Amino acid sequence: MIIELKASVSVDQAKELAQSNKAFHIVDQEKNILITSSGLREVPDALESVTEKFWTFKDDIQLASREYREQTREVTIGSVTIGGDTNNTLLIGGPCSVESEEQIRQSAELIKSLGLTALRGGCYKPRTSPYSFQGLGLEGLQLLAKMREEYGLTVVTEARDATHIDEIIEYSDVIQIGAKAMYDQGILRASSKSNKPVLLKRGFGSTLQETVQAAEFILSGGNSNVVICERGLRTFETKTRFTLDLCGVSYLKEYTNLPVILDPSHAMGFAYGVPDLARACVAMGIDGLLIETHPNPKVAKSDASQQLTHEEFTALYESLQPVAQAVGRKMI
Amino acid sequence: MIIELKASVSVDQAKELAQSNKAFHIVDQEKNILITSSGLREVPDALESVTEKFWTFKDDIQLASREYREQTREVTIGSVTIGGDTNNTLLIGGPCSVESEEQIRQSAELIKSLGLTALRGGCYKPRTSPYSFQGLGLEGLQLLAKMREEYGLTVVTEARDATHIDEIIEYSDVIQIGAKAMYDQGILRASSKSNKPVLLKRGFGSTLQETVQAAEFILSGGNSNVVICERGLRTFETKTRFTLDLCGVSYLKEYTNLPVILDPSHAMGFAYGVPDLARACVAMGIDGLLIETHPNPKVAKSDASQQLTHEEFTALYESLQPVAQAVGRKMI
Amino acid sequence: MIIELKASVSVDQAKELAQSNKAFHIVDQEKNILITSSGLREVPDALESVTEKFWTFKDDIQLASREYREQTREVTIGSVTIGGDTNNTLLIGGPCSVESEEQIRQSAELIKSLGLTALRGGCYKPRTSPYSFQGLGLEGLQLLAKMREEYGLTVVTEARDATHIDEIIEYSDVIQIGAKAMYDQGILRASSKSNKPVLLKRGFGSTLQETVQAAEFILSGGNSNVVICERGLRTFETKTRFTLDLCGVSYLKEYTNLPVILDPSHAMGFAYGVPDLARACVAMGIDGLLIETHPNPKVAKSDASQQLTHEEFTALYESLQPVAQAVGRKMI
Amino acid sequence: MIIELKASVSVDQAKELAQSNKAFHIVDQEKNILITSSGLREVPDALESVTEKFWTFKDDIQLASREYREQTREVTIGSVTIGGDTNNTLLIGGPCSVESEEQIRQSAELIKSLGLTALRGGCYKPRTSPYSFQGLGLEGLQLLAKMREEYGLTVVTEARDATHIDEIIEYSDVIQIGAKAMYDQGILRASSKSNKPVLLKRGFGSTLQETVQAAEFILSGGNSNVVICERGLRTFETKTRFTLDLCGVSYLKEYTNLPVILDPSHAMGFAYGVPDLARACVAMGIDGLLIETHPNPKVAKSDASQQLTHEEFTALYESLQPVAQAVGRKMI
Repeated sequence: MIIELKASVSVDQAKELAQSNKAFHIVDQEKNILITSSGLREVPDALESVTEKFWTFKDDIQLASREYREQTREVTIGSVTIGGDTNNTLLIGGPCSVESEEQIRQSAELIKSLGLTALRGGCYKPRTSPYSFQGLGLEGLQLLAKMREEYGLTVVTEARDATHIDEIIEYSDVIQIGAKAMYDQGILRASSKSNKPVLLKRGFGSTLQETVQAAEFILSGGNSNVVICERGLRTFETKTRFTLDLCGVSYLKEYTNLPVILDPSHAMGFAYGVPDLARACVAMGIDGLLIETHPNPKVAKSDASQQLTHEEFTALYESLQPVAQAVGRKMI
Repeated sequence: MIIELKASVSVDQAKELAQSNKAFHIVDQEKNILITSSGLREVPDALESVTEKFWTFKDDIQLASREYREQTREVTIGSVTIGGDTNNTLLIGGPCSVESEEQIRQSAELIKSLGLTALRGGCYKPRTSPYSFQGLGLEGLQLLAKMREEYGLTVVTEARDATHIDEIIEYSDVIQIGAKAMYDQGILRASSKSNKPVLLKRGFGSTLQETVQAAEFILSGGNSNVVICERGLRTFETKTRFTLDLCGVSYLKEYTNLPVILDPSHAMGFAYGVPDLARACVAMGIDGLLIETHPNPKVAKSDASQQLTHEEFTALYESLQPVAQAVGRKMI
Repeated sequence: MIIELKASVSVDQAKELAQSNKAFHIVDQEKNILITSSGLREVPDALESVTEKFWTFKDDIQLASREYREQTREVTIGSVTIGGDTNNTLLIGGPCSVESEEQIRQSAELIKSLGLTALRGGCYKPRTSPYSFQGLGLEGLQLLAKMREEYGLTVVTEARDATHIDEIIEYSDVIQIGAKAMYDQGILRASSKSNKPVLLKRGFGSTLQETVQAAEFILSGGNSNVVICERGLRTFETKTRFTLDLCGVSYLKEYTNLPVILDPSHAMGFAYGVPDLARACVAMGIDGLLIETHPNPKVAKSDASQQLTHEEFTALYESLQPVAQAVGRKMI
Repeated sequence: MIIELKASVSVDQAKELAQSNKAFHIVDQEKNILITSSGLREVPDALESVTEKFWTFKDDIQLASREYREQTREVTIGSVTIGGDTNNTLLIGGPCSVESEEQIRQSAELIKSLGLTALRGGCYKPRTSPYSFQGLGLEGLQLLAKMREEYGLTVVTEARDATHIDEIIEYSDVIQIGAKAMYDQGILRASSKSNKPVLLKRGFGSTLQETVQAAEFILSGGNSNVVICERGLRTFETKTRFTLDLCGVSYLKEYTNLPVILDPSHAMGFAYGVPDLARACVAMGIDGLLIETHPNPKVAKSDASQQLTHEEFTALYESLQPVAQAVGRKMI
């Protein structure tokens, strides 16, 4: 249940009421909001006199629901705002991993030259084998920060586990939570205490319900800037790496107020399919796109098969504009 | 292995060679073609002198492969040709089931009024319960034939099992093989002996490999007019009915020569998501789209939740044109 | 809804009532039974005066439910009865495919020598490629019939599609419906008109609900001798061929009255895992086991990797007895 | 590649060689072992003279493979050793969550009274909703420690994320890594630096390959005491909570040297199926079993539906002994 308290209630009073009623407290659009389990169906007696408005829910998708907020949340990522009534579709490009200054600089120059604003690159790689390249870690974060400074770009990089979440919050403009870390409460709770936008990737074995509930961890902790990223489900099909779930995107758009970004590169796992899929994603009317591109994919230290060359990325970007336009949106 | 015989070999001789070498024989683009298991890697001695050209394959995707035929097959469905270099995207619309003459006539008028050509409607419904509406059977087929005659439309309806495949071949302009019947060799073999276009739906639990191999049953039997239809996989996600596999569509486009038609209605299972998904499908650059629409979805005898109203269908059709154009294709 | 008619109602009257109420009619344990969709929640006025008893259901699992019949059905397969209070676990062994008289004779001798009664062997193989061995067809059925005659064995073989279901019903002691044919209404409806026991395999992409509903097609058509066979689901795991669903077996045992037979050979896909899995199956307290064994698995024309040698099969059989005993059952 | 260094090489020298060759170094069974990526197929020149023996692998399952160690690892959990040639099957019982001293004491008394040794109970619960009971945290760990002291039991509890892994290592006798945390490198790396046994649960969306590779993180970090726990996969089937993968258990037993423990409670999600499944698990010849039991399941704060009553648990334990005996093992 979500309870909006009367305007006469102060933040401190609201916090006390939250504690005494075992509820979460946030300030949302300048209102004091308490959130309890959806199992609670009636306003507790103790709160009745201070309740302005309340919402009940059939399950624990509450703050993220369209019942609570009809319009998609506005989330600002660097210089670009998505969601709300912006109709912006943000294109975030860059390599799977930050590998060296030379490599990430080439990527930064590509992004900059296309008039785009957002550069991605992994530093803590969630590899499934201990014997593979694990990412440059802090050194990679510092390289990204350098690119931000030199090229004026927004940088996006991923937290692998809770041991370095503070570094990610410090260095990255967006807290990206990887698919394998979607349930990581160490990361979710730390993200909820930051104001930075959070790009929460759906786990490949996670239901939509669980994914939105992971967002609820962040929202109920006080950070309202959450974006969901669909990046493919693990299914029985093995010709492609994962199965991009656009039906799920329809669900998210219909029932939740969270902006949605899509990552066709990880879903497909092969560069050949990424352009068609990226155009399909944009035609869905989504809020953003995450595309892997590498100056020389053949020598990439991770995900070599799925990264576009800079030429392919450029051609893709150009082809996305008319598709975006056809559905009333703007690639940015 | 596929072997193209020399032009000097007659059809009768080719048939004899096929039999003595336990191979399939077809005439494809006016050439005599023998097909054996892909396990065979070298031309048998007995065939060496009559072999013009041959192809070996790593698995049993042979006639359907781009190695054998580089260009997508041209398949003519009524008055419209898809595949080849046509850039046509055929929109097939109509109700889940043919329920009555009045109902299917309304659907036929909708299709006609929009300048479209293809009307779908199920007569033998592959219901999972014996206690549900099972379709009108032959009576439904006769109603579809009536609509074809009165409105000049192409009609598309599905074979549920081999007991009525002859009726389907007789009455329908397209032999639609349902997802639950994809492995049905009674249907596949009968279809391979017809010249009618075959719309082969991928089973919701079937791999791409199996789906294309099901097409090989039809192709190797002599019918070259096969179109694959992706309609969603069964995954762990339950908020939507199935999960439309656009990654798989990328694979089919890259590696096979079969035109691809998509059915977002069955994948999604809910009308609300169909328009976004249909636009995504068209942006993939596909050859056709199957959309369920009903004069009054609320009273539909099957799949009530996923059928668009005629108004929604009309609006969708209009919105598809600019998307098609943006990717160099034409909705028809 | 299931309605048991009063004893005073004749079979002919019951049939008329079924027709006028759009219900199925069967005679079950000497009672006239009508079955309608589970959507019907109240006895129709026209039937009230002739109704002895009725059951309502939340979904279309009706005749197969434990609410309707508390005890597991007794089904007799050759000389062995399973289900009821027999505590028998029937072991059915034999090769994937009947390949030759010599081969199937060796299998028959193995089964006979162990004191077992049931011999399996496929004749119409549901191969996914047209270029693989497709089974001996009618010739295979005749070989099985010969083994029955010479060795006094029960023979079990599978219908691939509806075109040869009459042959299967004629030649086989059990109508086996393969996993890929589970939805095939041509087969289901023909089976429902026979009295022979039906071994209905769950499709690898089919839910428990759908599987039991497929059984309802047979039960509601008048054949009460239905056994479910679980043989593995298709999941994302690729190290094994399928994933045997023993949780699903728990569900079937709890909620349905159908005997359950398990097929660990197809689930695992590799001989090395079959003995452990077979022991696990027996410890579940099931009604039967289907194990593939071949005189010389290395040269088998289908499923070579998963068939046990005759020595392995013999050793397995011996190890199953104490497990069966430990859970109060008898291997037979 | 795994390289066993000659006995003449000291630990310090081995560490230097590891560093200069970018390899992991561990001391395993008193030998200095270096481990590199499996991509390395030949011993580097610099190591040739100090190499006693080496193993190459087709993928990154190395230390966990049967090629490296033929026999299953012996792992000691409290007073019980599993694996090796012990034939022990350890039964670990207790509630889903530690809820209060009174509740966990009742559970401890049950375990003690049956002559068992291992008590489970969650303190940091990986709930998918922020609005559910999240566990008692440190207070729960302290209650478990009290039970250990008072009843002489081994206690087993789970790390949810890396922020409290040190607490788990301090308080628990076994470091349990939950299914949702299987990829958590913060937890994996910390566990690898401890000597405590690690119970690594397979993620419900994780392949066997990934699961064993997660174990490699721990093994290559120096902790050789890793046990894999299979607890069910997420599949399309919704009648049961998950699908227990016993085919996967066959794979683990055949190809890896890690003891295997099974958790049928989480797989099934319903108490009714747990006894049959537990017996099936034991018949597989596994090393341990994790069963949830609660003094009063109806009021349990988490997983109420799947916990056995103490009476059911006792009855189950008694029924497991003859099954274990039938396959040459001992429940303990």
